[in-house]
Amino acid sequence: MSNLPADHLPDNSLGDLRAILFDTFGTVVDWRGSLIDSLKRFGAERGLDLAWDRVADRWRAKYRPKMDLVRRGEMEWTILDEIHRLGLLEVLEEFKVPALPESDIRFLTECWHRLSPWPDAVEGLHLLRKKFIIGPLSNGNLSLMVNLAKFAGLRWDVVFGCDLFRHYKPDPETYLGVCNYLNLRPDQVMMGAAHNYDLAAARKLGLRTAFIPRPVEHGPSQTTDLKADQAWDVIATDFVDLTNKLAG
Amino acid sequence: MSNLPADHLPDNSLGDLRAILFDTFGTVVDWRGSLIDSLKRFGAERGLDLAWDRVADRWRAKYRPKMDLVRRGEMEWTILDEIHRLGLLEVLEEFKVPALPESDIRFLTECWHRLSPWPDAVEGLHLLRKKFIIGPLSNGNLSLMVNLAKFAGLRWDVVFGCDLFRHYKPDPETYLGVCNYLNLRPDQVMMGAAHNYDLAAARKLGLRTAFIPRPVEHGPSQTTDLKADQAWDVIATDFVDLTNKLAG
Repeated sequence: MSNLPADHLPDNSLGDLRAILFDTFGTVVDWRGSLIDSLKRFGAERGLDLAWDRVADRWRAKYRPKMDLVRRGEMEWTILDEIHRLGLLEVLEEFKVPALPESDIRFLTECWHRLSPWPDAVEGLHLLRKKFIIGPLSNGNLSLMVNLAKFAGLRWDVVFGCDLFRHYKPDPETYLGVCNYLNLRPDQVMMGAAHNYDLAAARKLGLRTAFIPRPVEHGPSQTTDLKADQAWDVIATDFVDLTNKLAG
Repeated sequence: MSNLPADHLPDNSLGDLRAILFDTFGTVVDWRGSLIDSLKRFGAERGLDLAWDRVADRWRAKYRPKMDLVRRGEMEWTILDEIHRLGLLEVLEEFKVPALPESDIRFLTECWHRLSPWPDAVEGLHLLRKKFIIGPLSNGNLSLMVNLAKFAGLRWDVVFGCDLFRHYKPDPETYLGVCNYLNLRPDQVMMGAAHNYDLAAARKLGLRTAFIPRPVEHGPSQTTDLKADQAWDVIATDFVDLTNKLAG
């Protein structure tokens, strides 16, 4: 989008790294633990006794199929808030919850705006921000990402939402859209995520990659993304370790 | 873009205000003073003795005509960094500066990424951020706005750039685009600016308005925007005063 000249040719080291974009749900915030806590409190207040951890997992399970409908063009562009809302309605029906007022549906949908960060995330981002431009690149819409950052105390330099691109990850339009708006080459931008698929898509387009595993994102019996499945540019144990590895 | 239901009908007070977007060049940062300082330092280093305040004013004067070409569809979409670069080349020719290397042209163009805030801006934004979502809505492109915020220590919750809309203010697409991405009604969003034309455009679309005059933005003999020319929702002497008035 810019016509400014590039001063440098691509570089294979990380020496020219300028920005790090982070997947957010699972990578920066503990969506599952936070969601279960919020749902339990809601249930206690409404006198609803459900297996709220199963509700949370079923709700999350509904996200990818709906997003894939959008990605394949079988459903019109729909932001994540709305995907969450549609999934919630289905889950409440599955669990035979009596009809809730619209204000409750909205409150529950917006539980996704009030998720707590993993213990290392705020400190790690604070350190990374001294050296790099940092921001989220999540499948969340911009308003969700802004509200979530304010709730969780995430100090981003820039906030991206998939509604800016009208594409969901791992579509190339998201990763390349970020590089374009930041006026950086892909090799100056790193994707940081707890999910191998996300990094694989970013690497194919020339972005740098950092894997930060979150082995209990999906609870104690998680089987996926426990390890890096490629030699990513950086493999870190958490965000503070990522900072140390990038400073070296 | 969201299909979530609106809970409330429009409200004529400021009680439902959720976000404040700020014009940036002139309103938040002192572009003229910063630019003159940077140009003087550059000149001293290169042995160029020019009336750098006049250079700065001529350079700024070239921005609106070029932007208006874009707004009228007579020039293809061009980001502000590139408009600044084209204007710089013309100004250097006007002042008969010998051809400069591309790295100098780039360095000078990026002086617009390194502007200092007005003395009240950082403190005022810090206070406003406790209560509202805050961000810039300037004619700058996103990368310029991100770099500028980092340089000037502006802690935004969200950063907009006109390249997200491919429209320049005062086109309605910019103000309404922000409301849309924030998932807020126009009456929940306030435009803050030192320029009456910007507020007039925002008010026509239903946004709230705050005028913060910057009577020396254009130097000691400024004649424009010295006063509010409509009864804006808030008229403040500076950003700290704006915070006080909104807290009342």
